Amino acid sequence: MADPTRIVILGGGFGGAYTAMYLEQRLGHRGDVEIALVSRENYLVFQPLIPELISGSLGIVDTIAPLRRLCPKTRLYTREIQTIDLERRIVTLAPGFRPRPLDLPFDHLVVALGNVTGAAGMPGVQQHALPFKSLGDALHLRNHTLHVLEEAAIEPDPDVRKTLTTFVVAGGGFSGVEIAGELNDFVRQVVKDYRGVDPSMLRVVLLHSRDLILPELSPKLGRFAQEVLARRGVEIRYKTRLAGATSAAAVLSTGERIPTRTIVTTVPSAPNPLVASLPVPHDKDRLKVDAELRVEGHDRLWAVGDCAAARSGGTGDPVPTTAQHAIREAKCIADNIAAAIDGRPPRMFRFESLGSLASLGRRSAVANVFGIQLSGLLAWWLWRTVYLLKMPGLDRKLRVVTDWTLDLLLEQDIVQLKIDRTAAIVQEHFEKGEVIVQQGDFGDKLYMIESGEVEVIKERPNAPPERLAVLGPKMYFGETALLTDAPRNATIRTLTPVDAIVLGRGDFLALVSSFPELKKIFEGLLQSRRHEEEPM
Amino acid sequence: MADPTRIVILGGGFGGAYTAMYLEQRLGHRGDVEIALVSRENYLVFQPLIPELISGSLGIVDTIAPLRRLCPKTRLYTREIQTIDLERRIVTLAPGFRPRPLDLPFDHLVVALGNVTGAAGMPGVQQHALPFKSLGDALHLRNHTLHVLEEAAIEPDPDVRKTLTTFVVAGGGFSGVEIAGELNDFVRQVVKDYRGVDPSMLRVVLLHSRDLILPELSPKLGRFAQEVLARRGVEIRYKTRLAGATSAAAVLSTGERIPTRTIVTTVPSAPNPLVASLPVPHDKDRLKVDAELRVEGHDRLWAVGDCAAARSGGTGDPVPTTAQHAIREAKCIADNIAAAIDGRPPRMFRFESLGSLASLGRRSAVANVFGIQLSGLLAWWLWRTVYLLKMPGLDRKLRVVTDWTLDLLLEQDIVQLKIDRTAAIVQEHFEKGEVIVQQGDFGDKLYMIESGEVEVIKERPNAPPERLAVLGPKMYFGETALLTDAPRNATIRTLTPVDAIVLGRGDFLALVSSFPELKKIFEGLLQSRRHEEEPM
Repeated sequence: MADPTRIVILGGGFGGAYTAMYLEQRLGHRGDVEIALVSRENYLVFQPLIPELISGSLGIVDTIAPLRRLCPKTRLYTREIQTIDLERRIVTLAPGFRPRPLDLPFDHLVVALGNVTGAAGMPGVQQHALPFKSLGDALHLRNHTLHVLEEAAIEPDPDVRKTLTTFVVAGGGFSGVEIAGELNDFVRQVVKDYRGVDPSMLRVVLLHSRDLILPELSPKLGRFAQEVLARRGVEIRYKTRLAGATSAAAVLSTGERIPTRTIVTTVPSAPNPLVASLPVPHDKDRLKVDAELRVEGHDRLWAVGDCAAARSGGTGDPVPTTAQHAIREAKCIADNIAAAIDGRPPRMFRFESLGSLASLGRRSAVANVFGIQLSGLLAWWLWRTVYLLKMPGLDRKLRVVTDWTLDLLLEQDIVQLKIDRTAAIVQEHFEKGEVIVQQGDFGDKLYMIESGEVEVIKERPNAPPERLAVLGPKMYFGETALLTDAPRNATIRTLTPVDAIVLGRGDFLALVSSFPELKKIFEGLLQSRRHEEEPM
Repeated sequence: MADPTRIVILGGGFGGAYTAMYLEQRLGHRGDVEIALVSRENYLVFQPLIPELISGSLGIVDTIAPLRRLCPKTRLYTREIQTIDLERRIVTLAPGFRPRPLDLPFDHLVVALGNVTGAAGMPGVQQHALPFKSLGDALHLRNHTLHVLEEAAIEPDPDVRKTLTTFVVAGGGFSGVEIAGELNDFVRQVVKDYRGVDPSMLRVVLLHSRDLILPELSPKLGRFAQEVLARRGVEIRYKTRLAGATSAAAVLSTGERIPTRTIVTTVPSAPNPLVASLPVPHDKDRLKVDAELRVEGHDRLWAVGDCAAARSGGTGDPVPTTAQHAIREAKCIADNIAAAIDGRPPRMFRFESLGSLASLGRRSAVANVFGIQLSGLLAWWLWRTVYLLKMPGLDRKLRVVTDWTLDLLLEQDIVQLKIDRTAAIVQEHFEKGEVIVQQGDFGDKLYMIESGEVEVIKERPNAPPERLAVLGPKMYFGETALLTDAPRNATIRTLTPVDAIVLGRGDFLALVSSFPELKKIFEGLLQSRRHEEEPM
């Protein structure tokens, strides 16, 4: 018997999961075909429902479906992808428990890797703004929101409190609008549990680059959405983009700075680095595909969903990057792979949009379905019903109905599940004139300047502050307070925008105790600074 | 007007939360009393329901209740505690967003800090066994369990696969039994979704130091529990303790090693470090309290729950450390603080147990209620009903009923939510004769030996392996593969038990790029090892 034909699908989003499901329908009964799916998670995220996780209206597992149940005949690899070798037709996966990479040879390869939230050209956004793509991102935003409210409730300084109760969402498309609507409802509802936080201090700001939100829909629906959001307290800034971010402020394209601890970014999209590095034709950030959804010039390489720059075979119109279209592309690719295996000709991909829906938060939405425009409660009902019918599997439908029903009856939850990943070594961005370290504060971090300059200032009672030094790239500060346990003995302020590598106290101490050489370096620095009276 | 009396409660478990709730009932209407509660989380965890999270029978937020709703008149601080100064009567909290500690002065202090899972005298247990105390621990175990099943499904080596499908639970008391029962049901139910994992390979092993599990209940119920668990496939090892752990094996007190990637430990308990360091009388690991629940010799210092070594004022019997008793102690402390404020005499704490319940997994339990012993389905129904009635708030009761009902109808979920904290710098423990690094593997970690010795072995085709070197404390290995991207060029095997500090690839590379000095050190080492032919 000949070797089976190996189909490898990369990515477990709508494009990848539905390709596997449709392939199983067409080829799953045949012994001469093997289907493999590589996905970071073992579940499909039901992306349109993700914003509902902010308020907790939906349970976490209700917004996702296990891939093993959706495509039981497919071999699932829940690993990261290390490399894609088109020449040798091998995908290499990152190691699991044992440090051995895993090679997956393929005959057909389907790339369904989506895109990522980009931050190019916006200093500090990568480091300080929260993306909103994955389930983890949604949970992180929920927890972060509750965390800032917890802190606001015990913060004595009103200016700092204001920073904590301000939320900035960048992008007025589908995601940005749904996130702003949901976040706004959530904070205004739960604030009553936070004594000491004045509800009138809450600010949710939506930044949008054009003069009407939801450009995907008609101006009429966009205006309706604007009115609903504004009435509920969302401040919309038109013709304004997010230009940069620090840990304590959003920097807008207008030059304005909004002091905040919470920035959510939904724009712009950047290509998945694996997709960007593939040596095949690209159309901007995406893979160029032909009318049959093959990557141009490659016979058995296919692309689906957000990473594919597809055009309708009939009209040549670009295909919108939504779940609806990813699913229909998946069906076409499954058809065409089955045809290729059997030596039949492929079919062209054609699409016609069924409609668009956007939720505006509790009991309001806008919809454009088969050319009919709806808004308000009816659109909201339609929005829930449509997504409910789309959920794979009866058990999930039942769970979601139950949650939605309970949600109508019960109060929103304010439990904060701490599930943040704690990276030991992070980058931080500071704008010009920011105070990084305040004399007298507790020393919790070590800083290494990557670019930019800071000044070291000694503040004294009854005397003007004195500049002790200027520090530049590759210089450290902050180690004194970490090594001696004393409070910060000087203030550090930026003279230019600064990027720095930051190491937390616990990791710093673990490092210096593990690496005696490092300890010597810092102790030497400590001595010399004491000597030169150049503190920190 | 005089300053208000400040009552500060440390810890948001049953003891702390109920003290706040009872204090609000007694003193919440008075302007001359301030109640503050310090808790790491903003919710009370309903501890007895935590094992149900393993299988996902309960939603996460159904097992917890927001502290702000339970005690709305109490000021909540969701911060870590840094120090307790009994002399100056000040508790210092760790900094929040800004690096400034927060001082909380107090008149009365209630210590409700519980205990922690200990690992003293068991090498490797701290590093490689999973504790099971918090909500996060339960979610971590669930995700870890799904992760090993995912890996087992794609692991070609049958020996390694066996390691992945073996689960060891240490401790045959309430928690250990409930965890083993729940985990066993869960893996045996979901394994059918994992093609390539043979259900007969699954092993769940429960280690118990005595010859009958559940010593808290009668021998009759203990034997019933043993029979149920054994029938469902749990292997129980009697008179056997967990003696140590590595990343790939549980070391038993009998000398046996069980190869496994999953060890859950429920014993022994160690004191919270903050409690241990308090300069007051201790009774073993706990605070010595008098019949009125004051810490001995301290007028306005109280202790409640697992951190208090309380005895019944009537009989002198030690008070069991269960939620039931913590709640009744909390009531007594609230009474006595109210009495102290009003100059009335305090009351003695007395208790009589209402009964004990332990779940054995799906639809079986054992119970001892008012002296009546129950087992099987009836005990299980009672178990659910009792805990349901204990849940604070109607909305939680409703949610839990719904989840339990759906759970009877629907299949168990296999979605793995990745929420693990990734520590950059971790400790690992290895037993004698273990291979730490295998020649030819991918280089993913740098090791620094803290104690013990390893040998460096070069394996060659058609020749016996050659020992190149022996490395000891404060020496590194593993940097070559990280710096050069080549596979491991030698094998490292332990000659003694070894403890090592381990740094992952990404963090190592971030570090050497941030600290040029460190880079120089490692590059020097690389050169010298090349020169001496002492690889790694």
